[in-house]
Amino acid sequence: MNSAPNEREKERAVTWFNDLRDQLCAALEGLEDAVTGPNQTSDQAPGRFERTAWQRQPGGQAGGGVMAVMRGRVMEKVGVNVSTVWGTFSDEFRGEIPGAAEDPRFWASGISLVAHPCSPLVPAAHMNTRLIVTTTGWFGGGCDLTPVVPDAADNESFHATLKRACDSYDAECYGRFKAWCDDYFYLPHRGEPRGVGGIFFDRLDSAERERDFAFIQEVGRAFLDVYPAIVGRRMDAAWSAEQRRQQLVKRGRYVEFNLLHDRGTRFGLMTGGNTEAILMSLPPMVTWP
Amino acid sequence: MNSAPNEREKERAVTWFNDLRDQLCAALEGLEDAVTGPNQTSDQAPGRFERTAWQRQPGGQAGGGVMAVMRGRVMEKVGVNVSTVWGTFSDEFRGEIPGAAEDPRFWASGISLVAHPCSPLVPAAHMNTRLIVTTTGWFGGGCDLTPVVPDAADNESFHATLKRACDSYDAECYGRFKAWCDDYFYLPHRGEPRGVGGIFFDRLDSAERERDFAFIQEVGRAFLDVYPAIVGRRMDAAWSAEQRRQQLVKRGRYVEFNLLHDRGTRFGLMTGGNTEAILMSLPPMVTWP
Repeated sequence: MNSAPNEREKERAVTWFNDLRDQLCAALEGLEDAVTGPNQTSDQAPGRFERTAWQRQPGGQAGGGVMAVMRGRVMEKVGVNVSTVWGTFSDEFRGEIPGAAEDPRFWASGISLVAHPCSPLVPAAHMNTRLIVTTTGWFGGGCDLTPVVPDAADNESFHATLKRACDSYDAECYGRFKAWCDDYFYLPHRGEPRGVGGIFFDRLDSAERERDFAFIQEVGRAFLDVYPAIVGRRMDAAWSAEQRRQQLVKRGRYVEFNLLHDRGTRFGLMTGGNTEAILMSLPPMVTWP
Repeated sequence: MNSAPNEREKERAVTWFNDLRDQLCAALEGLEDAVTGPNQTSDQAPGRFERTAWQRQPGGQAGGGVMAVMRGRVMEKVGVNVSTVWGTFSDEFRGEIPGAAEDPRFWASGISLVAHPCSPLVPAAHMNTRLIVTTTGWFGGGCDLTPVVPDAADNESFHATLKRACDSYDAECYGRFKAWCDDYFYLPHRGEPRGVGGIFFDRLDSAERERDFAFIQEVGRAFLDVYPAIVGRRMDAAWSAEQRRQQLVKRGRYVEFNLLHDRGTRFGLMTGGNTEAILMSLPPMVTWP
């Protein structure tokens, strides 16, 4: 295992997560201004992000974060969380965590975005990158696209952009990270994938930490590059009541995945994380007909 | 441990579950006819239950059930499932199951009802009773009430009716089963109870199986007696948009409980149960604002 990242490396990651958050919020607010429609929500006022700072309750854990949420006319609900927390893993968990057997203290920082658009013609999306530090340190993350009405061009541009980001890191990793995503975002009880995939990776701790950090920045930039562009192409069209109904059903699958299977959600809720920030990923309106 | 119930005892339980289902469906359809309103849904046509039979897929497990679902003008969505399944517990599970260490074969039958009313003034409710057979056998079940706008009279009549059912079984069990319910239907990540409670019990295997069976029949009759009466008292009043909004938020908590914590839901989904029947408990329309 590698040595733990030093304070400067941790600080730099936090700065990047905040910077990426600002860029993502600006891009998504820009779409709120740019939508022309006419569609079912385009006559509403453009949305703006509201930021709420939170701190972890006492009890051995510390840190906090900023939840940025926008409810708009392109995005029915989109949340971008940046959080930095530290504390001590319970004896129950530490055995599973690299570098925590020797010393249970950890530090973790990350950015997480979940976007639920108004229009069923605009795909929902998720993006997350993080740095975890114990007596060693590693990056993890991923992003994936969840359309209601899949579109071959959107699909292709999403995957091609992620492939370029991966290729800049390592010529073989894209296939592996794509397969990992397909495997992870799957609902076994439905026999359905959550969406059309993307990439997923964890425990990225190559010998050169600079390269790993450059890669998660590339993932963030790739998402910033491709997702707002897809939204921009699809956001003006009006939709049918049947497409809206399909969207609310599809969102139910999203809820099922996040509450039944998502490790981050379950881990966060079971270990006293910020419930509002963790469940910000849940869609604004959902149906189980 | 007691001996396993014989075929006649199993058959009798299945007959009771089917009979109770018929009575519950008739009572709830009667309310669909009886509602006068005027409220936001009372001008719709009265709902009727639709029954769908299902069978377990092959793979060592067998059996099936009937899902009865009604989408009406009093009940936005109410499901009553009766299922009878048998098979073999996996090695992973059998250690935790009474009487399965010696022989992993099991048989299980039960009835489960979840009601999500149209009106936020009408409480949601759940009722379930079951018989599980391995090399031994036991009953389990419970019921609880989840109002959006709690009403002291409803609350009192619900708990008093359940207390009478419990008292007929054993003078001390009501307090224990009520506390078990409060403990079980609790969302730790929200610091909130799911509703206003009721009763919950499991592994009911007294020396007299007749008495246990009589008790779960009493629980079914108590629910049949009290819940439609509560619905009938509350169903005509019109509600405010704000009450409806509160209802959709409260339903989000119901989803969180069922997918994060409910043992039956998680057990069923993880062991290849009928997904549609298990997730019939999820509300028809939900919001996470």
